[in-house]
Amino acid sequence: MTIQDQLDETIAAVAPPDTIAAAAAAERWAGRAKPPGSLGRVEDLAVRVAGITGQVPPAPIVQPTVVVFAGDHGVVADGASAWPSDITAMMVMAMSGGMAAINAFATTVGAGVTIVDVGVATDVSHLPGVVDHKVRPGTASLRVGPAMTREEAIRALLVGVAAAEREIEAGADLLVGGDMGIGNTTPSAALIGWATARVAGISEPTDVADLVGPGAGLAVEQLPHKAEIVTGAVHRALALEGDPVDALAEIGGLEIAALAGFMLAGAAARVPVVIDGVISCAAACVADALSPDVAALFIAGHRSAEPAATTALDHLGLDPVLDLDLRLGEGTGACLAVPIIQASVRALRDMADLPPS
Amino acid sequence: MTIQDQLDETIAAVAPPDTIAAAAAAERWAGRAKPPGSLGRVEDLAVRVAGITGQVPPAPIVQPTVVVFAGDHGVVADGASAWPSDITAMMVMAMSGGMAAINAFATTVGAGVTIVDVGVATDVSHLPGVVDHKVRPGTASLRVGPAMTREEAIRALLVGVAAAEREIEAGADLLVGGDMGIGNTTPSAALIGWATARVAGISEPTDVADLVGPGAGLAVEQLPHKAEIVTGAVHRALALEGDPVDALAEIGGLEIAALAGFMLAGAAARVPVVIDGVISCAAACVADALSPDVAALFIAGHRSAEPAATTALDHLGLDPVLDLDLRLGEGTGACLAVPIIQASVRALRDMADLPPS
Repeated sequence: MTIQDQLDETIAAVAPPDTIAAAAAAERWAGRAKPPGSLGRVEDLAVRVAGITGQVPPAPIVQPTVVVFAGDHGVVADGASAWPSDITAMMVMAMSGGMAAINAFATTVGAGVTIVDVGVATDVSHLPGVVDHKVRPGTASLRVGPAMTREEAIRALLVGVAAAEREIEAGADLLVGGDMGIGNTTPSAALIGWATARVAGISEPTDVADLVGPGAGLAVEQLPHKAEIVTGAVHRALALEGDPVDALAEIGGLEIAALAGFMLAGAAARVPVVIDGVISCAAACVADALSPDVAALFIAGHRSAEPAATTALDHLGLDPVLDLDLRLGEGTGACLAVPIIQASVRALRDMADLPPS
Repeated sequence: MTIQDQLDETIAAVAPPDTIAAAAAAERWAGRAKPPGSLGRVEDLAVRVAGITGQVPPAPIVQPTVVVFAGDHGVVADGASAWPSDITAMMVMAMSGGMAAINAFATTVGAGVTIVDVGVATDVSHLPGVVDHKVRPGTASLRVGPAMTREEAIRALLVGVAAAEREIEAGADLLVGGDMGIGNTTPSAALIGWATARVAGISEPTDVADLVGPGAGLAVEQLPHKAEIVTGAVHRALALEGDPVDALAEIGGLEIAALAGFMLAGAAARVPVVIDGVISCAAACVADALSPDVAALFIAGHRSAEPAATTALDHLGLDPVLDLDLRLGEGTGACLAVPIIQASVRALRDMADLPPS
């Protein structure tokens, strides 16, 4: 089986949400001992989990799992980021040692953390807890593109597929994908610009600059340069004769590709996937381009402060659980939404019936 | 010592937040391994906990505790609620059996739940896990008032003080106060209307009707009746010659008084108190009237869909963690904010230092 066949197999395994299960879950809420609708948007979460898993009520979520995909970006050398690429490996080391924000958040919510190196520029294979699936040591700059070959993009997608399958095999019943990659808000904004323009049928969108934010702290006077890079990338990707994988190869990132594969595999296995910030949103847009409407099987954890995140959430039809001005990535925002999803499922399962009237 | 002396002692023990500790916590965030400010409003939570506890970094929060105060309301007989008062005892029974929403939520976040009967109309003392501190079996209707005597109001406040002190003595390091009381959005809206008009120096506010929402599902055509009751109550409370306890006795509720005492005792002991929905907001307004600026020692868990909640949050200067259209009470919304507060504290403690630049 070729790697293209493997990818196609995962995509083919994705089916729409179980609307009968979702309707039955909503019906079950209506009979719980509380005023109808009084748990607001929390009620929607268990309904969504029912639609994803097909179970009513859904089983309690007891093994949430975080996988962080790490990769570097050639565009950093073109001035797209406030930080040098070295920081990616340094943060992978911090995560390996349990000392990054995602470790603290995952510990709080009882989730394990695995780190997958899909494209860090330097060697991090000696670090404990880091799985070595490096496709290449960082992308080429997407300013001129392509960032990677089509084959590399597929291999990175499959790294994510395999990671999700491994975690599910080990018992994970909810997946959080995280990212680490200095410079990755640039390919993310580009992919989101590409995905939205593609669906709208616009070949040279003029509002791409609105998608560009400071990421990890780019100075405001550098934003026009970043916007110019992103705009050029979007126009190039839209001009390609090809499929979404070609666009991903042209302007994407290795960890973003892996995240998209991770999301597709979670959806194929009917395991809820919680979307994090702008990088995860870009990956979800790629997944949704490869498998139309797969986003109906995702749960948006939070609304990132990065502007393209809101564009992507609207594009995907996702209503995020949290809005806390986060812009860190790593899976942090998605992780904080996990207990709220768990609480919704538990309440739908365990609450008393309304007294007969 | 008289009961008034006991209350005064708790109030006198409240001191302002430790601004030096809060500043040191903010400084510590600035040195963590992440872009400055990238955890957004999550960073504010550990800073607030530092200001409350005086510890930098704050100790991990390992024993969050929920106390639900239950009481009935004479105003239900005047048509202020969609549900009969019997439901209060029924829901206390559901909580006692672990089958209410708050039980499912508290289990999810690892918090214990205690139920305190401060004024249920019927006898619930036989139920496991229900502490009997009944001051009186429900209030008189606040439509004509007074809802209770001044002595009863003080005794109800002290029930809450004692409950907080008991939980803290048992090791609680974060307090969530919840409520159960059919009809209690009416006294809550009235107390919030009173507290805001009092501070603004308005004796007959004309916008009180804007504070009135459907609560647990009052039909829209009944809302003007509820608004009329609330407006009359606010005007009466403002016309009283007396202190905030007199206003509380005139238009309040037993469980609201207990919640206010619970919050004051948490503040006095420098233990973070998480505020829930509109009932808790009303209690926080009472606490703040008794001990000006005590709300600086509280954390707002969520923004209730009930309109008076937003008025109260603005009045108290609180920015809620969550906004999920909840309107159930019981402490549910505050409970969901607990892991986010825990995650903030844990990240501030455990994250690596920024590499020296």
